Formats: sequence, structure tokens, C-alpha cells
Amino acid sequence: MKKGLFITFEGPDSSGKTTQAQLLREHLTGSGHNVVVTREPGGTDIGEQIRNIILDKANVKMDSVAEAMLYAAARAQIVAEIIRPALEQGITVVCDRFVDSSLVYQGQGRGLGNDAVETINAYAVRDCVPDVTFLLKVNPETGADRRQSRENDRIENEKPAYHKAVYEAYLALEKRYPQRIVGIDGTQDVQEISRMIRERVEPLLCAKNGISGNKS
Amino acid sequence: MKKGLFITFEGPDSSGKTTQAQLLREHLTGSGHNVVVTREPGGTDIGEQIRNIILDKANVKMDSVAEAMLYAAARAQIVAEIIRPALEQGITVVCDRFVDSSLVYQGQGRGLGNDAVETINAYAVRDCVPDVTFLLKVNPETGADRRQSRENDRIENEKPAYHKAVYEAYLALEKRYPQRIVGIDGTQDVQEISRMIRERVEPLLCAKNGISGNKS
Repeated sequence: MKKGLFITFEGPDSSGKTTQAQLLREHLTGSGHNVVVTREPGGTDIGEQIRNIILDKANVKMDSVAEAMLYAAARAQIVAEIIRPALEQGITVVCDRFVDSSLVYQGQGRGLGNDAVETINAYAVRDCVPDVTFLLKVNPETGADRRQSRENDRIENEKPAYHKAVYEAYLALEKRYPQRIVGIDGTQDVQEISRMIRERVEPLLCAKNGISGNKS
Repeated sequence: MKKGLFITFEGPDSSGKTTQAQLLREHLTGSGHNVVVTREPGGTDIGEQIRNIILDKANVKMDSVAEAMLYAAARAQIVAEIIRPALEQGITVVCDRFVDSSLVYQGQGRGLGNDAVETINAYAVRDCVPDVTFLLKVNPETGADRRQSRENDRIENEKPAYHKAVYEAYLALEKRYPQRIVGIDGTQDVQEISRMIRERVEPLLCAKNGISGNKS
């Protein structure tokens, strides 16, 4: 039975997810909470091996279904090995990307459709559905500018039309799940975004753990 | 539209599948047919990277769903890159393991159930269903004796109960698909088995390609 709070971060590449996940971790651990921060694809030994295949720029021939299955494999592993055991112990889990990424990148970006991606991922996720998802919205043009300053992987190297489809799919998801997905303008000041996230997380933590919170 | 003949080999590890696939290739190419022989998991650059993760003895923590997804990923890749293009060109495809392996190893051996494995793999296989499957039957005790003489991978290292479940699942599949699956006693003489396989393949090739066959 799930007891811990499950928080995910979503958004295009270079939207600041990793930074915000780290800032949230610092805040929560600083206030005495047990927190596990992890990322997808990867987050486990086996998942990181899968991540290397997915992101390797040499793997240009990768079939879209194979890509979706590899993400789902890494997800099944992180759920089984990290996310579910932590939630069962009442630990807060912060995950940098989760199923929503597959819905937008494979379901829409690759054109597999949401039904296929949801069906495949239902086996990977099992009962671990996020309580809240922060979607950092950075439009494709700004994302492209941010990516120019660093080495890009196979997915980041995709054409502008792909990144545009991904962005639009994120906006559609935000509309589809307004209770769970909190859209945030990712071009705002980093500390301001972090403050907005903390304000949304704290009442959820209280609701999960009672007024006293989940002090370690 | 599928035109080539699609032949798969199934059976426990060390049942002689690879040997029989090679003998069939020699026979078919010797009589002027275009043949592609491949194997699962693997068979493509990306598939071989996935194979390394699946079979690595260090990956003892692998979740069963992750394992099934990795096999399905390698399968989606080999279908997209090799099997479907070859069949579309009228080339005969011989594949050492295919979906039946996932049904018995993950569906039954790991206990995921046939429904889950079939649902996941429907996306990987698409319309590429084997025309005929040769199941080389070697009971778990004989299989274990054969495996003793060589280095074993993560799957081969599984306990006897696992190999017994796999063997029984193969026998159940043979009963379930009597039109497609041809069960053969894998302890017989190698050349005798090869002759039996050729006798089953030739009328199927004629039916696919007309009396003249698919001479190159």
C-alpha cells in the first residue's frame, strides 16, 4: 500500500527539471523529510544501461516501438527497485520524468498514440501513479537556444518539428489532467519557480503524513 | 504485404535450435532460395546491445516486467529492421526464437501470464507472425546436462524449477497452436531432425512462391 508522496517533474529538455528536483530535495531534507530523488530513463544500474542505448547518438536506426519498450523497461525497473519500495516505507519520491514523458515523446513525438503507450506502460508502472506532476513549460524555441550551449543526445538531436509536437503534447496533457499536473512557466527565475513548487508540495505532504509531517 | 516464408525455431536452451537454423539455411541457399537467418534477442546492432543487458549475469536484480520489455524492444527492432523488410521482398526468414520464447520464459517462467506478454508483444510484432515454428523438445534434465559443458548466461543460470516451467509451457503452446507449431524430439540425430524440418518447409515454400519456388 502506497504511503509516501510521489512527485514527478516533466517538461522539454533544458526546461530546468533537474535543477528544480534538486532544489526541492534540499528543501525537503532540510525540513527533516526522507526523500529519494531519481531520474528516468535510468535511476538504477540496469536502467542506466538502458539509458545508454536510448540516448546513444549512434543508434539512429532505433524503431519507435523499440524506443517505447526501452523506456518502459527502465521504468519497470525503477518502479520495482526504487519507487515502490520507497513509497511503501512512507518516503517521498521525486522523479525527473515519468510516464508523461513517454506519452509526449513516444505517443505524440513518434506518433505511436497515447493508447499504445498507456497500455505498454500500465505493466511497468503498476500502482505507482504520481500524486503531483510539475510541468516546466519552456517553448521549443527557447529550449533549442538552451540546448545549443551543450552536447546533445539522440533525442535532443531530433528536428524542431519533433520538439514542437512534444511541447504541444505536454500542453494537452496539462489540460487532460488538471488535478495532477501543475504547469509552471519555466522561463521564470529559478528561485521563484522553486518557491511555487514548495507551496504546492507542502499541503500534499501534510495530507499524506498528518500535520506533523514525515519527520525522520 | 507479407510474401516471404517466416520460420521460427523454439525450445529450451541447448536444444539445438541454432544448429538446425544453420542447417536449414545451408539447405535453402543450396537450392537457390534467398534466406535471412537471425536470432533473438539481438539480430540487430541495437538488439545486440539489449541482449547484452538481458543476459549479463551481473544483472541479477532485473525486474520481470523490465525483462519482458527488453525482449519486446529487441523484437520490435528486429521486426522493423530485418524481418518485415525481408518478408516484404519475398525472402525467407529463419529466426532463432521469437514471441513464443517470451510467452514461455516471461509469461510462465516469470509468472507474468500470457495475456500481459501477448499484449506487450502485439506492438513489437505487428503483422509478422511465423508461418511455421519448429519446437525442439529436450526435457529439462537433458538440457541441464548439455548446459554443463559451457559458460551460462543469466537466464541459463536460473534454477531447475524455472527450466521445468519453461519446458511445460512449451508443451502447452504446442497443444494450443497445433497448426503452426511442429514439435520435434530434440534428442534425435541432428541430421535426422534436419531432414524432418526440410520436409515440412518445402511444401510451405511451394505454397508461398508457386511450384517454381523463390529462386534467386
